[in-house]
Amino acid sequence: MSVCPAQPASGFVNEDRLSRRLTAMAAIGATAQGGVNRQALTREDALAQRLLIEWGAELGLSPCTDPAGNLFLRLPGLDADAAPVLSGSHLDSQPTGGKLDGVYGVLAALEAVQAIVATGVTPHRPIEIVAWMNEEGSRYAPGMMGSAAFTGARPLPAILAVTDAAGISVAQALADVRRLLPEIPQRKLGLPVAAYVEAHIEQGPELEQHGDTIGVVTGIQGKRTFRVQVLGAAAHAGTSRRAERKDAMLAATGMIQALAHALHDPEDIVKFTVGRYLASPNAPSVVASEVVFSIDLRHPDSTRLKALGDQIAPICQASAAPCDVHVEELSRADSLEFPPAMRDRVRRAAARLGLRHRDILSTAGHDARYLHPHSPSAMIFVPSHLGLTHCETEYTAPADLAAGARVLADVLNELANPG
Amino acid sequence: MSVCPAQPASGFVNEDRLSRRLTAMAAIGATAQGGVNRQALTREDALAQRLLIEWGAELGLSPCTDPAGNLFLRLPGLDADAAPVLSGSHLDSQPTGGKLDGVYGVLAALEAVQAIVATGVTPHRPIEIVAWMNEEGSRYAPGMMGSAAFTGARPLPAILAVTDAAGISVAQALADVRRLLPEIPQRKLGLPVAAYVEAHIEQGPELEQHGDTIGVVTGIQGKRTFRVQVLGAAAHAGTSRRAERKDAMLAATGMIQALAHALHDPEDIVKFTVGRYLASPNAPSVVASEVVFSIDLRHPDSTRLKALGDQIAPICQASAAPCDVHVEELSRADSLEFPPAMRDRVRRAAARLGLRHRDILSTAGHDARYLHPHSPSAMIFVPSHLGLTHCETEYTAPADLAAGARVLADVLNELANPG
Repeated sequence: MSVCPAQPASGFVNEDRLSRRLTAMAAIGATAQGGVNRQALTREDALAQRLLIEWGAELGLSPCTDPAGNLFLRLPGLDADAAPVLSGSHLDSQPTGGKLDGVYGVLAALEAVQAIVATGVTPHRPIEIVAWMNEEGSRYAPGMMGSAAFTGARPLPAILAVTDAAGISVAQALADVRRLLPEIPQRKLGLPVAAYVEAHIEQGPELEQHGDTIGVVTGIQGKRTFRVQVLGAAAHAGTSRRAERKDAMLAATGMIQALAHALHDPEDIVKFTVGRYLASPNAPSVVASEVVFSIDLRHPDSTRLKALGDQIAPICQASAAPCDVHVEELSRADSLEFPPAMRDRVRRAAARLGLRHRDILSTAGHDARYLHPHSPSAMIFVPSHLGLTHCETEYTAPADLAAGARVLADVLNELANPG
Repeated sequence: MSVCPAQPASGFVNEDRLSRRLTAMAAIGATAQGGVNRQALTREDALAQRLLIEWGAELGLSPCTDPAGNLFLRLPGLDADAAPVLSGSHLDSQPTGGKLDGVYGVLAALEAVQAIVATGVTPHRPIEIVAWMNEEGSRYAPGMMGSAAFTGARPLPAILAVTDAAGISVAQALADVRRLLPEIPQRKLGLPVAAYVEAHIEQGPELEQHGDTIGVVTGIQGKRTFRVQVLGAAAHAGTSRRAERKDAMLAATGMIQALAHALHDPEDIVKFTVGRYLASPNAPSVVASEVVFSIDLRHPDSTRLKALGDQIAPICQASAAPCDVHVEELSRADSLEFPPAMRDRVRRAAARLGLRHRDILSTAGHDARYLHPHSPSAMIFVPSHLGLTHCETEYTAPADLAAGARVLADVLNELANPG
């Protein structure tokens, strides 16, 4: 028997192992430009889940899924009936995504659990690693479907009925994914959770600019999303006079410019993005009869977000003539703040490990948004080089990735061993 | 033997027959909204050609094709070696096109030839009905491929190599169409043509507004087309600051607005159209990394067209920052004027038939553009209700359609019987 004092779980986190696993995951859906295309409920998503199940099995973790296609790997606790501590993120990516967004949080949780196992002390509560279904929302909009279903924020039948551009429903794609996975138990949707902790890359430049390694996430900024449909009339590009035209392309581009001007803030805090734009019939010599575009609007101040978002429909209306416009709000989430006690745990763990840290607001959305009203939640950020994300050049230094996993390991172990 | 003076060919034109054939053709590729989707080299295009061949066979017309996929139906002349008189247009449509654009010119030629046959007098020269391959240029850009190849304006190998959005080449699509056609002879590309006459709907409101039935087409306005590629950088919609972004969507919409302002003429003669717009990755929560859009610019005055078109690249450059932009000119055609002698033939035929007519400039492009430098060419317009075209509501009164076919019949018969 060793006479050394018990080493904290973070001492068993292995930077190389974490890097190797991230590299192996990045090979699934790898793009020519060094990024990842592993959209939700595709074959690549299923292959990533399969690999995660295999790695969990090596540690003795039991996999299970639920009707929303979330994947859980469970480390038993001394009290089998206690609500588990949950940690993870998502395995799906944007169409031209990077190697870290989402998958880092899942593999940091796996690394943390492996470190806890290595301490030789079984935790009181079970710990579960989770990979939430469809966080990104590229193939099936809006995203965060798995966590929304798990927490009851959105009804499952509505989620299962959503279709992708090819007309394939979530229900059908889920069935296709299950066929690619080994036989694993399915439990019912949702369960009591003692606490939820999600590690993630910052997706902004703040930590790097300040030379900090750990972001203690204070909350998540609010977001409103809209679908704008501009209706004109098809006409011949050579014969129809400008005065007779109802050109949806001119109206839509005018709206987007008017919105950008109206929402412009000198402080550069407002996030206004038109990421999706579809024109019909989209033929070079035909005046566009219809344009549909997306608006993603975010602001950390919920009052300001409301005021900004409420301008969108009137601005679109004012720029529509001679076309018609329909503005539909797809989603609306106020800014949220994680419980101070949870943030303290992250801050203290970072301090004990001698890691430079700072409080930081998440300007991106995460599955933790839905877990927050459901159970005490926290997030841990690690730096994103140059703040680049949702692109193929996403990068975080391996030492920073390991530092995040160390903080996570100690926080999870503390949460799983209350008192 | 009849003692009546010979009746002109126009006397045998049958309005009902022409309407019935137009209706039968409109069923091939019919859309739910009453229009036609019969894009070039599709199954629908092949079915339309097959029907035309059948109708020709009933009249004893011999079909043949050429390496560019143009379809010809030949009425023999007394002088088998004489260069034929050619008349027709195209069977392909826009994705949401109407029942008349193109197909009217082909079926008016068929009606005219049937009327000439009905006179009982074999013409001196052969007369050929032609359906040019891919006039619209929606599936394969740019359009007027068949007439361009026939007249040597564009090299055939370059045309055959063009691919559609699914990566299918013109060569492959042509082979697919041939498999759907009966066995017909293929002759070599191009041949001497005595004269070319194309009937077409006006695609503008001028004839209807003036109460005229026949447009004596003076020429075709010039056109320049461009492809604009805007290069930005993908970034996260929630985290990336405006100052850091290279948002291709904001830059492209700004360019289109700047172009619309700069090219705005109070006289409303300039035709400026952005009909096609493709964003990447086209995801709601990702700042666009790339936008590609089309420009279609037309003006009847070639000098003015040159000056306007030359502004496009500098305006795009000026609106590009912080993105990059590449402007490529895809095609450039000056305005052209049909030979006065050919226009006189159309004018006199309309006058003899007591039809109200006026000189009119074609603001749309037509296959006659390529035939014009190759052989004496003319065009006959009939009214377009409200000027609507390249849309599902295209309409011309049956009596006007028949009037155009009558003028065509007399002009063709005159051209085929010189002296």
